[in-house]
Amino acid sequence: MLFLDNASTTKISDNALKVYNEYSCDYYFNPSALYMKGAKIHQDIQNAKQDILKVLGANKFDNIIFTSGATESNNMVIQSFAKNGSKKALFGISEHPSVYNVAKHLQDNGYNIEFVNITDKGTIDIEDYKRKLTSDVNFISIMHVNNETGAINPIKELVNIAKNFNKNIVFHSDGVQALGKISVDIEDLGVDLYTISSHKIYGPKGIGALFVKKGINIKPMLLGGGQENNLRSGTENTPAIFAFRQAIIDAVSNVDNHFLEISKVNRYAKDKLLSLPYDISLNSNDMCSPYIISFAVANLRAETILRMLEDKDILIGNGSACSSKKKGNRVLSSMNIADKYIEGALRISFNYTTTISDIDTFIAELSRAISVYKENTNR
Amino acid sequence: MLFLDNASTTKISDNALKVYNEYSCDYYFNPSALYMKGAKIHQDIQNAKQDILKVLGANKFDNIIFTSGATESNNMVIQSFAKNGSKKALFGISEHPSVYNVAKHLQDNGYNIEFVNITDKGTIDIEDYKRKLTSDVNFISIMHVNNETGAINPIKELVNIAKNFNKNIVFHSDGVQALGKISVDIEDLGVDLYTISSHKIYGPKGIGALFVKKGINIKPMLLGGGQENNLRSGTENTPAIFAFRQAIIDAVSNVDNHFLEISKVNRYAKDKLLSLPYDISLNSNDMCSPYIISFAVANLRAETILRMLEDKDILIGNGSACSSKKKGNRVLSSMNIADKYIEGALRISFNYTTTISDIDTFIAELSRAISVYKENTNR
Repeated sequence: MLFLDNASTTKISDNALKVYNEYSCDYYFNPSALYMKGAKIHQDIQNAKQDILKVLGANKFDNIIFTSGATESNNMVIQSFAKNGSKKALFGISEHPSVYNVAKHLQDNGYNIEFVNITDKGTIDIEDYKRKLTSDVNFISIMHVNNETGAINPIKELVNIAKNFNKNIVFHSDGVQALGKISVDIEDLGVDLYTISSHKIYGPKGIGALFVKKGINIKPMLLGGGQENNLRSGTENTPAIFAFRQAIIDAVSNVDNHFLEISKVNRYAKDKLLSLPYDISLNSNDMCSPYIISFAVANLRAETILRMLEDKDILIGNGSACSSKKKGNRVLSSMNIADKYIEGALRISFNYTTTISDIDTFIAELSRAISVYKENTNR
Repeated sequence: MLFLDNASTTKISDNALKVYNEYSCDYYFNPSALYMKGAKIHQDIQNAKQDILKVLGANKFDNIIFTSGATESNNMVIQSFAKNGSKKALFGISEHPSVYNVAKHLQDNGYNIEFVNITDKGTIDIEDYKRKLTSDVNFISIMHVNNETGAINPIKELVNIAKNFNKNIVFHSDGVQALGKISVDIEDLGVDLYTISSHKIYGPKGIGALFVKKGINIKPMLLGGGQENNLRSGTENTPAIFAFRQAIIDAVSNVDNHFLEISKVNRYAKDKLLSLPYDISLNSNDMCSPYIISFAVANLRAETILRMLEDKDILIGNGSACSSKKKGNRVLSSMNIADKYIEGALRISFNYTTTISDIDTFIAELSRAISVYKENTNR
């Protein structure tokens, strides 16, 4: 099987699964327990946080809060902003649904929310950003790497613009598709809050985290036993936490090597796609994450092609998995992609083991599928 | 090692871990993906829900929502009640912190919340319950089995009283310490909402569920990709979901046999505790879950005894793990347990493999620990 839908989820690594199993069997104690075997796990969690902060280039006095995944991290941040007394908040128009839908919900409930446009390249429209950055803005959430196109937002520049305008603005970024894929240095980016996820980087599902810069006031969403310094109650998912730690370390320590390799694969795939004798639009440009290519065949339905490829044991995505069953496409429409390409929008996304040979296999089968499709439908 | 703190968490079973590993490695696809391998996992999740509904004695048209654990399930229910337009809500005074602290938080924010007292036996004071059940009550949350004492609330009776008074009252019960320990028949209990957890019944950590009776209006807490019919967004933690399903089936199919066995172990342990030549109070009576015994040695600090036992490789709890580091004890105080026993309150909790011989080991070491403690401190 050729799995080219790694932006939706990844297979857990042997390394991460080994850690998961070890902690499940040998160190399953509740970290809140008073005996030393419990206290030891509690300390291990603190150490894991320090390891993650270090790998992210953050300060050791900053905080990591473990959550059930990026959706929880994003919801927690945005609900916290609302609880802390919102004035006005800015969100990118191309945010993941776990940011966008929460922002929409707040807007529907009377909060002052504005969405910043993106350019045809899929990144934040800086002029629109500056226009909407008014004196009452006190929270901004803009994703690092877009999950549908791979477009990389210039987070450092966006943070600088915001903080120079008003140093009290709190800046959050959803880094789910950035971590382990492109170089991430939290201190350099200057963000106050940063969301990360495990199952996109060969870690277990059901675990994510929120980076919280020292001094940033965040309110809990889940109340209860007071775990995570009262910021996220619930018995800690220790096997997943330690497997996640392992996945982060593995992904980040290889990030540059893998980036170079996958950039070659990406370049090769784009050239091959453009060389096909069909009307194909590339929605990911050369500045995007090399792990994601969004493209579309004019006037063809993505779902049909996707299913034809599955018959050849090749799995690819359409837009993002999270919105795969929804009509239309907010992200591509915001990039002014022509309608004839929207219905046919497909996404291939790589992991660090994807090869040129995989691309050859994919392109051959894609070409065959399009040809058969066109023959059968006269489109 | 003798682990007598199973009410805080349990070791995952081989069965459940096997399922977790299988789904992690072979069926890791995102259930939201459009290809058949994704759709198949989505269908597997629906099937798991049906299996769980069946095992719980619920109707197939009811719903199961998978969450990151009981804390999320409880928070979701109570926040949903608040969002749906609260009039007045009743909560048991001995609820788990993931219910109690959310209720307190709502009360602090102006909601009309009343806490129902418990009797000296640790169960809901029915007279107080009836007194507080006024015409404006529209939500009630009372736990099935108390996590500190094992006291079993008469949920069916409490539901009947409430529904006969006003059939529109929504009744929630936290069943974390009931599932797999005592017989649970959702239909017979009559509850509208019921919280269950995986890691208390030999399933993985980080997964739980909320039973929702057909027709009950529940609001999502996490917004995003729209998973779980828009009721709980976030990529499904599939390996944990299917391992949880396995753990539930294993626990429930053996619940009666294990109940009988552990009842004998419980009776033996209580007799042995009462036969010790010290001033010991039993805070769990014969009507409690046989899996939990709360007891206290007068005027001795629980933490000291707990640590002395750990030196002998015996792990026990003090109160609940979730509140182990907090001062005082809300549950025991509400039962009018004398102060001299509160500081020394300990909890032993069994799993289905605990034996009479384990109790002998425990009692011998406990007796030795108390004796040494008393000698060293003149208490």
